[in-house]
Formats: sequence, structure tokens, C-alpha cells
Amino acid sequence: MKIGKVTVPRTAISTSDEHTIVVRGRDLSKELIGKIGFVDHFFLLLTGALPSEGQARVLNATLVAIAEHGLVPSNQAARMTFAAAPDAMQGAVAAGILGCGSVILGASETAGRLYSEIDTRIAGGEPIEAASLAVMQDWRAVGKSIPGYGHPLHKERDARVDALFDVARAAGTDLRFVKIAEAVEALIPQVIGKTLKLNVSGAIPSVLLGAGFPVAALKGVPILARTASLIAHLYEEMTQPIGFALSYQATREMVYDGELPEGFGA
Amino acid sequence: MKIGKVTVPRTAISTSDEHTIVVRGRDLSKELIGKIGFVDHFFLLLTGALPSEGQARVLNATLVAIAEHGLVPSNQAARMTFAAAPDAMQGAVAAGILGCGSVILGASETAGRLYSEIDTRIAGGEPIEAASLAVMQDWRAVGKSIPGYGHPLHKERDARVDALFDVARAAGTDLRFVKIAEAVEALIPQVIGKTLKLNVSGAIPSVLLGAGFPVAALKGVPILARTASLIAHLYEEMTQPIGFALSYQATREMVYDGELPEGFGA
Amino acid sequence: MKIGKVTVPRTAISTSDEHTIVVRGRDLSKELIGKIGFVDHFFLLLTGALPSEGQARVLNATLVAIAEHGLVPSNQAARMTFAAAPDAMQGAVAAGILGCGSVILGASETAGRLYSEIDTRIAGGEPIEAASLAVMQDWRAVGKSIPGYGHPLHKERDARVDALFDVARAAGTDLRFVKIAEAVEALIPQVIGKTLKLNVSGAIPSVLLGAGFPVAALKGVPILARTASLIAHLYEEMTQPIGFALSYQATREMVYDGELPEGFGA
Amino acid sequence: MKIGKVTVPRTAISTSDEHTIVVRGRDLSKELIGKIGFVDHFFLLLTGALPSEGQARVLNATLVAIAEHGLVPSNQAARMTFAAAPDAMQGAVAAGILGCGSVILGASETAGRLYSEIDTRIAGGEPIEAASLAVMQDWRAVGKSIPGYGHPLHKERDARVDALFDVARAAGTDLRFVKIAEAVEALIPQVIGKTLKLNVSGAIPSVLLGAGFPVAALKGVPILARTASLIAHLYEEMTQPIGFALSYQATREMVYDGELPEGFGA
Repeated sequence: MKIGKVTVPRTAISTSDEHTIVVRGRDLSKELIGKIGFVDHFFLLLTGALPSEGQARVLNATLVAIAEHGLVPSNQAARMTFAAAPDAMQGAVAAGILGCGSVILGASETAGRLYSEIDTRIAGGEPIEAASLAVMQDWRAVGKSIPGYGHPLHKERDARVDALFDVARAAGTDLRFVKIAEAVEALIPQVIGKTLKLNVSGAIPSVLLGAGFPVAALKGVPILARTASLIAHLYEEMTQPIGFALSYQATREMVYDGELPEGFGA
Repeated sequence: MKIGKVTVPRTAISTSDEHTIVVRGRDLSKELIGKIGFVDHFFLLLTGALPSEGQARVLNATLVAIAEHGLVPSNQAARMTFAAAPDAMQGAVAAGILGCGSVILGASETAGRLYSEIDTRIAGGEPIEAASLAVMQDWRAVGKSIPGYGHPLHKERDARVDALFDVARAAGTDLRFVKIAEAVEALIPQVIGKTLKLNVSGAIPSVLLGAGFPVAALKGVPILARTASLIAHLYEEMTQPIGFALSYQATREMVYDGELPEGFGA
Repeated sequence: MKIGKVTVPRTAISTSDEHTIVVRGRDLSKELIGKIGFVDHFFLLLTGALPSEGQARVLNATLVAIAEHGLVPSNQAARMTFAAAPDAMQGAVAAGILGCGSVILGASETAGRLYSEIDTRIAGGEPIEAASLAVMQDWRAVGKSIPGYGHPLHKERDARVDALFDVARAAGTDLRFVKIAEAVEALIPQVIGKTLKLNVSGAIPSVLLGAGFPVAALKGVPILARTASLIAHLYEEMTQPIGFALSYQATREMVYDGELPEGFGA
Repeated sequence: MKIGKVTVPRTAISTSDEHTIVVRGRDLSKELIGKIGFVDHFFLLLTGALPSEGQARVLNATLVAIAEHGLVPSNQAARMTFAAAPDAMQGAVAAGILGCGSVILGASETAGRLYSEIDTRIAGGEPIEAASLAVMQDWRAVGKSIPGYGHPLHKERDARVDALFDVARAAGTDLRFVKIAEAVEALIPQVIGKTLKLNVSGAIPSVLLGAGFPVAALKGVPILARTASLIAHLYEEMTQPIGFALSYQATREMVYDGELPEGFGA
């Protein structure tokens, strides 16, 4: 069935013949394998260009920062899935990745969109505070929350934030989105009525956008990072299985608040 | 519900308190972010130890080698899924990862198991050819194919194979699984009656096992690598949508060989 | 980690002890198995009450209507995934379900929300045309399209629409959302400047809302229906494998519009 | 890329033109919508024929029997996923389905294969006990467990088993696989050294195979049934969110048994 107008598939990422696999204009076997690291390769696949040393440092740092935070819901979902379906590691990884949604890890992307909107206003001549305030108020007016601030566990500014900012400064990449992120942080009490500190989902786009990473691909960063963590958890699950233990613990205090048939539990 | 005997979940990968996230015994913000690359971090998450420079080179090379091969089925599935559900990048990545199965990318893991079995026999004193032949015949006897050899497109030895072997030699990691992989390649005509050359799914475990990568986690390498590629394809899909065009082309020559109601098409 | 305020899980759907599984207050083995059909059971699970005969007829009809439409993108994605990972049927089904997104099958839910908004205005005293026009204009003003109208293949009103309306009339369920759906259809030319006829994604919520199906669960109807179809396609794939043929056809006319290394294809 | 020999996709399930959608030779809108129930439609999609009344009763009963069993791991995984990604119901359903694996719900299919092997021997003239014992011993000899017996909660024969057997008897479908299932149950103590009673995963194939349901599609039954339950749980999650509470409870007694950096927790 024809859906939409495009009928011929096009891609600029890769092609191949019997002898050569081409990735972004390079011969994979001759120019890339053993010549560049995997994170550089990811940047190349995504943007068509190799990263500068500074860009690569920042991208590596963000992937390291967001990869692992213990038995979070997505790692739990993956370990439960693997316990039930141990023959299909790909299924358990997929179950974990499906938890990279708007509430949990998607904030990196939405915070990046917030900062980009503010940046556009600044480019148009507005001072940073006015631009930030205006965009924050726009977002609140249509019922959207301000992403990238606050954390259920880390009430102070998450230590990962300053670590990422340090990397960006040392890498020499553009810091203007860091300034925007901090301007937003300073305005949070005024706009939403309480103090919320920058979290890692705010820090990631603020350093990555300055490193030339495309805003529309930001969600890919937590997805790729968490995939590494999911694989580690599933490898641990093979020798130290806890998938069913997590599920057992989860419902020990479960309350059933529906109806019961006569005589149940008698 | 209690399933199995373990009731208390344990993990050695990560813990945290309000101030510190611990990953494999290290303070994430102070010791890891900006200090190590993402691939080193993956190795650390998985094994509990940082890789040597040689181990990291080999792991990077394998991830680069397997990340991208054009509009393969899993990239097609992901782009079709994204065209239908553009709000959920994680869902399209998951759909692509679900295609890392036994037929397509799982051969890295099964080839690794084949080489490990041969290695065990060699460690027990058998010569490499005898050990290889014995294991290959065992596998064939129970109906299993020999994974890691042959490719629908690359009839000669896939250029990625030699590139990976070159990296392993330069990195100074253990080459004994490379020798096993080549011994198996030489015996293929005798065992299965035709010539099949080493492919990338054979080369990956042969260099990774020599670099201390755990055999049970081998499937994680194509999964992580392809995730990077999937994100690049979905980013391209945002500006150059082809998901529905792929689907349209796929069925242009479709044959319906079932029954038809009277008058259909009249 | 504690996320949010709720710490004790509650559910009203099911509980059990060693002897009895309770579903919505009933003894599963004594009161449900063999006593009610699966679609009635779905309605019970979802709403806590058994459907009337009319409600069951309408729900069955919508599930039949949306289950199958040939080798659509999600069935293709599932068959490609199964070809690559034949050991994990659940993974191939999941890949297909992931294509039930906002663009393809999600329109049932969004059309249901549109009709509910109009219904609320009518309940407040507005005439049906005025209420419909107002809500349609509101949606267009914020950039949302009007879901449930038009089809790439069926330019006339899709025959499934009238079939579903006939079922609703015969079943005696509330027809007010059908009237709303038709009022919207009549206003489409005025609001968006071209004629688009009701499609199956508009018809489904218009009959289901009248049958007491909750609007927030509407997306579950195409998901459940397509799961049945996906299983049929995967069963066919076992004996008549076309997953890789679909993928091959999809890229036969593929255009690579990126760069090439010197000498490629020579 | 061409993988395998088939290049032209074929299907016998469905085709369509501008006016008519054909499903298994029937006009969907004229012959199926409102005329047959969804479970009959599933049987038709799968096998190409409408079920008899008895076949439909048995299939309905198995789907009802396996749909729901409270906050099992797959429902937990789905609710956690939905809490993190509430915009994508399809992703949360997919995460739940991915837990229909070999350990948890796949036993329906493997038990069906066990019974089919026994049935083949009986058809060849062996008495039922001898045939059952031989196949059970074959399976144990290659390290496979006997699927369909024992349950972590229901130590007596699960009440769902007798309910399903009653349905099969009343429906008049073939009971020979029920007899095989009971013969296996009686031999379990002799073959594995302890008593394990028939569970629902053994009962489902034993009644479905007798109702003409294809053994290779058996895994589809728990997948379809659980999809209904997953949708109900996600609908409850919208108004009574517990996804994060489950995750919080799951790790309250979590033990971190890895290393710690100096000063952690001080």
C-alpha cells in the first residue's frame, strides 16, 4: 500500500558492493575499523562528519554520565524479561529501552528543545534572562513542565552536572547552552515557585548542543548509553539471577482493592 | 508471586546515595565522567575492570565493524516503525534491536561458543585441527550449523575480517581464537562440503575472546553497535522519511495466493 | 529509588491464593473459563463489568474490522524480525505492535478524544454542528490534524465504516458518537478545504464510545486486534518465509545519495 | 541485500483493492464484521477456516484461562515502562509481551510439541504409556525439562486445568491430547523423581491440539491473551499509577555486593 508521496527509498548513510561497505563516504574496512573509536563512529553515522577531539570528549562524557544508575525501572524491566525469556537477550534489551520515555530519559531531548528555543531568541537580539523567561513562560502557558531540573534522589545539583560542565570547558566546545541552562536554573523559583537544581538530563543537552550534536537526535544519547548498561545487567543476570526476586519484592506489600468472591481465602 | 528460590535482589554493578553514584566501585562523577571513554565504560560495566589499551582497541574495532551495513532488515523495520510512531524513538530502536536474532546477528555469540569449545579441547591437549574437527562434527551431528562463515553478499572473505585481525595483532591481545577461527575456516569444505569464508560474525568473537571479553556477553556487541546505527537511521528518517516507501516497494510484486470472493477486482 | 509519592502498589484487577485466581471479583476457574468468551473477558478486565450483549457485539465487530489489512508496515516489520530471530515469536509480535503509533493506528484514540470533546459541548447545550465546528477549529488552531478521516487506498467512505455503523444500530448501543463522527465528516471540507471520508479509525471510537468503552483505552483495540493478525502472519512465515524477500524488494530501487570513496564499484 | 532464495513475497491471508478488503477469501466488510466474533476471526486468520462451535469454545476458554494472573513480572515490566513512557502505550504492551518467553509462557508451546511427539508414536502403534515414557526420557536425555507441570503457587493441580478439560469435554473436541497430558502427569514421578501436577501451560495445548489448533502457533495463545490483560493493566495505570511504586518496592531490600569508593555513605 502506498502511504504518502515518497516511493523511492533514499539514504546517505551507507551502501555496499561485493567488496566494499561504504559508511558516510568512507571504506569501512580500510578507513574506519581500527582507525576510529566507536563513539566517533556514532557521531559520523549520525552527522556525516568525524567529531573534533573536543566534540568526541563531550559526547563520550555524556554517554558515560547517563549509562548507569543502578536498578532503575528499565533495568528491572529488562531483568524480569530476561528471567522469563533467557533465550532472547535482544528482547530484554528492547524491554529496557522501551522505558526511555518522556518521563524518565526523554528529558534530555525536551530540555534540548527548550534551550534551542531560548538560543534562537538570543540570536535575535534578546538578553539571555529575558529570552529564557519568555520561553519558560510560553512552555508553562501550554501546560508543559520545564525539563532538566530536579531529581527524586539528588536534591542538590547532581554531581554529574558539574562534571559534564568541567568536561565541556576543558574540551573547548561552545558553552552558550551551558549558560542558558544555568539561566533557566536561576529562573526556576520565579517561574514555578520552588527551587529545582539542574539534573543530568539538563546538563547533557547543554554540553552536547555546544558540541554540534543535533537537537533532534538527543534522545539517542540516553538510548545508546542505557543499552550498554542493559547488556551489563543482563550479563550479571545470567550468573546472579534476580529478575523474579525483583518481581516478588515488588508485590510483597501489594494491596488488592477490588472485589472478592465469597469464601476467598477461607 | 514467588518464582524460584532467590528473594533478595543483589547487584555488583551500581549503587548510590544522595551525593554519589557508584559504578563498579568508582565514583561516577569524580572518577569516570570525562576520565574514560564510553567503550571503556561499557567494558567496566560488564566486567568490573577497566580494559587495557589493547582490549579497548579491539572492542572499539568490533563495534565499528558491525554497527552499519545499510538498509538491512532491522534498519528497515525501525524506519517503518518510526514512520508509524514518530513520537516514540525508543520504540523504533527497540523494533530494530529485536531483529538481532539467531539468524542475523546472533552468529557472533554462537561462533564464540564454538571457538570456546574448541579452545577447551586444545587446553586439554588436543591439536588445533583435531579439536576443531571434533567440535564441528559434534555440532553438525545435532543439526547445528557452523556459525560465522559465509555471507549473502561477500563471497570472498569479508574485508572486515582481515581489518579486525589486523587490529588484534596491533593491539597485542591473545590471538589463539583467531587461529581457531581460521582452522575452522580451513575445515569447512571437509565438514559441510563447500567453501565458506570467515565473515564478520566469526571474526568478532575470535578477536574479542582473545581480548578477555566474556563469551556469554558476545551478543551484546552487535546489539550495542546496531543501536548506534539505528539512531542514525531514525535521525535521517526525521528529515528524509522513507519508512513507508520501503513498505510500498516491499509489496509491489506481492503475490496473493489465497482465495478471493466472487466479483473481487471486477 | 523512590520516584513519585505512591509507594504501595494497588490493583483492582486480580489477586490469588493457592487455590483460587480472582479476576475482577470472580473465581477465574469456576465463573469465567468456559462461561464467557475472550472478548467479554477483555471487557471485564478493562472495566470491571461484563458487557451487555450489544456492547460485546460492537467490541467484537471493531476488533474484527481492524485486525487485518494485508502486508502493512507493521506486519512487514514483524515478518522481517521473525526471519532474523525465529526463536522468539514474542519479539516479532512486539516489533509489529510498536508500529501501532500516532500516525497509523493511534488515530482511533485521538478521534475518540475529538468526539468526546464535542460530546461534552453538546451535553452543555450546544447544537451538534456548532460544537463539532468549534472543536475542529480549536484542534486546527494548535496545529493538530482531524483524525479518523481519509485513507491512502479507500477514497470513498471505507466499507468497514458502514459495516460498523450497521452493527451499532443492530446492537442497540448509543449512537450519539456516530452522529458526531458524521457531523465532523460533513464539516471537513469547510474546515480543511477538501473532502475526506470517515475511515475505520474514526468509525471504531464512534461505535465503541457509544458502547461504554473507555476513551483512554481506545488505543488498546487496534493493539489487541493487530496482535491476532501478527500471530497469523508469523505462523504463515514459518512455512512460507518472506521476511527477507520483503526486505530485498524494499531496497531494489534504493538510491544512495551520500558520498563514495574513490574507486568504489570500479 | 538478498538473503536466501525467495525474492517475491507471497501471502494467503489478505489482499485488497480500493473497494474491498479480502481476509482469507472473504469480504471483510460484508462477510466478517458483525457476522463473526473476534476469536473466530483469529482462528480464521490463522488457519484459513472458521472454527466449529466446539473449536471456538475451546479457544475462547484457553484465552480466558491464561489472560490474567495479577501483577506477574510481565505486567510489572509493562507498568514500569508505561510510567516512564506514558505517551506510547504500544511500547508498554510490547515490553510486557517480550516476557512471554521460554520460562514463563512459552511452556504452552513446548508442552504442545511434547504431546505431538507422543501422539505420533501412538499413531504408529505404541501404547500411550510406553509412548509417553519414551518421549519423556528422550527429552530428559538431551537436558530438556518436561514442560507443563508444576507451579510456584498452585501445588495441587491448578483449578484452571480441570476447568479447561471440562470445556473440552462439553465442546466435543478430540480429547486424545488430554489423555496424553494425563499420562505424562502420571509418569512424572518416575521420570523426574517428584510429583508435579498439570499446570495451565500443559492444559492449554492438550485441549487446543484436540480442537485443531496448529502446534506451531501455540505460543500465540498466551501472547494474544496477555495482550488483553496488559491493556487492562495500562488502563488502570493511567488512573492508579503504580509503576514506580513497584520499582521502589522491588529494591527496598536490595543488596549491593560490589566495591565502594572510599568515604561512600560517610
